Amino acid sequence: MVSKLGRLLIGKSLKTNELKSEKFNVFWGLPVLSSDAISSVAYAGEEILWVLIPVLGIMSYKYMFYSALCIVFLMILVTLSYRQTIDAYPQGGGSYIVAKDNLGTIPGLVAGASLTIGYILTVAVSTSAGTAAIISAIPVLLPYRVAITLLFIFIITIGNLRGIRESAKVFGTPTYLFMVVILIMIFFGIFKVKVLGYVPKPIYKIPPVVSDITVVLFLRAFSSGCTALTGIEAVSNGIPNFKEPSQKNAKRVLELLALVVLVIFGGVSYLATLYHAVPNPNMTVVAQIAHQVFGGTVMFYLVQATTAIILIMASNTAFAGLPLLLAFIAKDGFAPRQFAKRGKRLGYSNGIISLGLVSSLLVIMFQGDTHYLMPLYAVGVFISFTLSQAGMFKRWIRLKSKGWIRRAAINGIGALVTFATAVILGITKFLSGAWVVFVLTPLIVYIMMAIKNHYSEVARQLKLPVSERPKEKVDLSKQKRYVIVPIDTLNKSFLKALNYARTISDNIIIFHVSVDDEATARLLKRWHEYNVDIPIVVKKSPYRSILGPLVKFIKSEEYAAGPKDTVTVVLAQLIVTKWWGNILHNQTALFIRTMLLRMRNIAVVTVPYIIFED
Amino acid sequence: MVSKLGRLLIGKSLKTNELKSEKFNVFWGLPVLSSDAISSVAYAGEEILWVLIPVLGIMSYKYMFYSALCIVFLMILVTLSYRQTIDAYPQGGGSYIVAKDNLGTIPGLVAGASLTIGYILTVAVSTSAGTAAIISAIPVLLPYRVAITLLFIFIITIGNLRGIRESAKVFGTPTYLFMVVILIMIFFGIFKVKVLGYVPKPIYKIPPVVSDITVVLFLRAFSSGCTALTGIEAVSNGIPNFKEPSQKNAKRVLELLALVVLVIFGGVSYLATLYHAVPNPNMTVVAQIAHQVFGGTVMFYLVQATTAIILIMASNTAFAGLPLLLAFIAKDGFAPRQFAKRGKRLGYSNGIISLGLVSSLLVIMFQGDTHYLMPLYAVGVFISFTLSQAGMFKRWIRLKSKGWIRRAAINGIGALVTFATAVILGITKFLSGAWVVFVLTPLIVYIMMAIKNHYSEVARQLKLPVSERPKEKVDLSKQKRYVIVPIDTLNKSFLKALNYARTISDNIIIFHVSVDDEATARLLKRWHEYNVDIPIVVKKSPYRSILGPLVKFIKSEEYAAGPKDTVTVVLAQLIVTKWWGNILHNQTALFIRTMLLRMRNIAVVTVPYIIFED
Repeated sequence: MVSKLGRLLIGKSLKTNELKSEKFNVFWGLPVLSSDAISSVAYAGEEILWVLIPVLGIMSYKYMFYSALCIVFLMILVTLSYRQTIDAYPQGGGSYIVAKDNLGTIPGLVAGASLTIGYILTVAVSTSAGTAAIISAIPVLLPYRVAITLLFIFIITIGNLRGIRESAKVFGTPTYLFMVVILIMIFFGIFKVKVLGYVPKPIYKIPPVVSDITVVLFLRAFSSGCTALTGIEAVSNGIPNFKEPSQKNAKRVLELLALVVLVIFGGVSYLATLYHAVPNPNMTVVAQIAHQVFGGTVMFYLVQATTAIILIMASNTAFAGLPLLLAFIAKDGFAPRQFAKRGKRLGYSNGIISLGLVSSLLVIMFQGDTHYLMPLYAVGVFISFTLSQAGMFKRWIRLKSKGWIRRAAINGIGALVTFATAVILGITKFLSGAWVVFVLTPLIVYIMMAIKNHYSEVARQLKLPVSERPKEKVDLSKQKRYVIVPIDTLNKSFLKALNYARTISDNIIIFHVSVDDEATARLLKRWHEYNVDIPIVVKKSPYRSILGPLVKFIKSEEYAAGPKDTVTVVLAQLIVTKWWGNILHNQTALFIRTMLLRMRNIAVVTVPYIIFED
Repeated sequence: MVSKLGRLLIGKSLKTNELKSEKFNVFWGLPVLSSDAISSVAYAGEEILWVLIPVLGIMSYKYMFYSALCIVFLMILVTLSYRQTIDAYPQGGGSYIVAKDNLGTIPGLVAGASLTIGYILTVAVSTSAGTAAIISAIPVLLPYRVAITLLFIFIITIGNLRGIRESAKVFGTPTYLFMVVILIMIFFGIFKVKVLGYVPKPIYKIPPVVSDITVVLFLRAFSSGCTALTGIEAVSNGIPNFKEPSQKNAKRVLELLALVVLVIFGGVSYLATLYHAVPNPNMTVVAQIAHQVFGGTVMFYLVQATTAIILIMASNTAFAGLPLLLAFIAKDGFAPRQFAKRGKRLGYSNGIISLGLVSSLLVIMFQGDTHYLMPLYAVGVFISFTLSQAGMFKRWIRLKSKGWIRRAAINGIGALVTFATAVILGITKFLSGAWVVFVLTPLIVYIMMAIKNHYSEVARQLKLPVSERPKEKVDLSKQKRYVIVPIDTLNKSFLKALNYARTISDNIIIFHVSVDDEATARLLKRWHEYNVDIPIVVKKSPYRSILGPLVKFIKSEEYAAGPKDTVTVVLAQLIVTKWWGNILHNQTALFIRTMLLRMRNIAVVTVPYIIFED
């Protein structure tokens, strides 16, 4: 039943060699990898104005324009840098790989950890913001805020489990719709003022000018808008997800992404200046612009609806990025290796599911009030940008390949600028939450190192030299095999286990742990009646543990097996076919097996007895 | 580490024969089993006034007195009835046992189900109410309401896991403290008005009289106060938890319980009349009385504090009652039999833990706003009262033992009155939530029946007739044993499994499922180098499943084992000693074993290979 439901939700399994057809082309790759960046226009401009308006009043628009310019410049620089990364790392070159390859393991892990935090927060923040947008339109849904957000995360998780290609089409369409709607708004908005001569009537009053611009204020405004850049990493990390020629396709998507963000972010910022939008808790800046441009027409509502959808879609970039990043880290042994395993539909399903679960947990913990998680993730993203650029810079210096000076210059400047941005973000946002990144990142790096140590140690202990030969073929009839068959009740399941034991040994002991005198007396009476010529050992267990007396017996003098002999324990296990049946049976066999296996020189045989029910 | 933490929290294991010393006497049994009933004075009187005051104004106090009288009468009647039940069922006679024994299985299960619902709700409601009382004193804690409630449930769960006796002492003391404080308040309150001639100044204005009393209004008031009776069931259900003479002790506790509730409930109701307390969301009725009686002295705060504590302690009655009830039901096969198993400290730990978890879930689901769960549980409790009384009535009619007419009369009147109350509760509270009980109870009864059917079917299929003999001793050297050893990587763990296989058979096949061509090529090359004279079979798995190809191979013509031969699969299992190590390894062996066991004629041998780490 569970597997049927699973198939219904995520579709039938795909063969490994169908992987090729599960990749995306430029047209569908763009919306998936850019939705995070594009969605930020829905709030990045507004965030800048929130900082400026209370101090600068009408002057704000001038400096908003400058901030936007700085961010666009940063965007172009980062794009150019990442183009070079894609050239250098055709197998996928996220910050993790580039930093690890060029700067060493620790910087690589730092980049990986900060990106992981960033991606998880992206999902929690963007789905919460999307839900908030929907609720501000339909206030009656307010009590179900958390449930709605979780539903969105669930849908996106399922969509991604269904496979890259399918999710790209389903989740990509709304992104394109948003782009088209916003572009229409930009063009018509400019046309209305510049050509039709419309005089904007601001919906909210602009507060008076309190003071002039300061460097600190400008930096705070700039850093508030920097969230616009978070999605870029996903492209160069995701090269393996592109159709051939994957490198070329990835570069094309990167360029288009920069172009789209540039046009939309620039356009909306310009419109905000033109129409004097003033941030207000009751109406977003984009909504104010749309209302002035389109009035109460259907286009206004279309802007509102697509904005809500794009906010939710933004989390899809994280779903495209994080599982792949975790797979890279896991292949290197720094994360549980299950993250490197492809699921039924060839996506890295463990990464997808983990991302869905952890972000859902965050939403529940913060009851959907995740807007104050926002400062957290920009810092992490810029730390990883810096490490990636610095890594590339070092690479050019080392390789000195053709055109290395120009390339080194681009990445070097990129490193400096993104580092400066990371510092600005770290300082301006430290108290409002960025400190968490500085606590979590080292912790995650430490865990990753511990995981790597564990895997190395396991590999070392498992390594088999050719000199260590298997046992020679033995005369089976001369083997002394020690077999113990525990008994609780004399029934068919036990009999099946006993019969199996008989086929492998003629040195069997039946073992009974007595926790209830009456039950033991009944068993012994029946055993007597049954009259089989095999010794039975009964041990009392005052603390009602079954395992303790069994282990003690195996280790005791009383039992003839030496410490080097392998003891075989044959367990009868009831198998019930009803899916809810297992919770009705003490999983004693399971527990005994789990604990016995921690002893050396033991082999546990499980003999199933199946109960059929209709 | 986990087991150390467990020992720290719940203490060391107790021996089965220490059970006797884990029981409670009258002095400690009273607070545990009465806290639920006693705590209801903190709100039962208030609930009555909430119904009456808006309509009757100053007239309310008169009818509150009548309502209280009716409830006290009901209380006495139920107490007398249960005294008889304790006499008749010395092994413990909750409604479940009495109804099942005298009325049949379905009435018994209905009683059991409705009590189960009642107990679970008691915990959720009373801990939430206690937290609310604390928060109204310290409003800064408001954002942590859910967390605080969960913490209380956790503490009470742990306390009960530590054992009956210990929890009785820890949780019983505050109950006695509350009793003493409230008794002082009652005596001094009456003394102050009647002797010192104090003229009460009501804190809130009594609203004007709107209309006269109606039957419906009176019944609504009466039913709102009926929650005072919910704890009585726990005493007669809990006879086995009392020290010898357990029957006599239980009866003594029942009588004392009735006395205490009578005095406190009657006293507080009288004080409410005397001091004209008016229910108000900002100050409870008890608080208003205490403030007038004691002024702002320390006694006022003591009343407040002990009231908050007793509300939380009320849930302890459920922790004393439900696990025992579930154990009775489980022994009859209508609930998972794990509920009938005693834990480390001899309590029915599975029931205790389940109660803690389910009530925590309710608190989380309702975000601590559980006051509207209150109407739900009174109905269920009175349904079970009715069934229990009716059962006793039928019993006397049937047995016709000494004094049966008097006894039948008491139980018969009890059945009628509690039935009438259940009907009143069901009707007046139907829309505000009691309907849930009418949906849930049949559902739970249905599940209980399904569980019983399952256990019966399992027992039937497992039953071993003496005629069905075990296999005779066989010549081991002539056995044809089919053994398959799956291989993933050629390492020491695999070698250990192979060596074990060699000791039980000379008919071994190594089986490899290929999900990655490169890895398979590497394995085959190494296997070749290793040069062991055992055949290896390689199967491709396009869908990356390990299990599918293995099962297919076992069933195929290619494999020589006939459908009646037992096939032995020897699995190498890695055991890591670090507690977090297991999440880092694909639990493939575990999964394969689980699925293979669903085939008939198979035996799965698990050979552990232990990795030691410091």
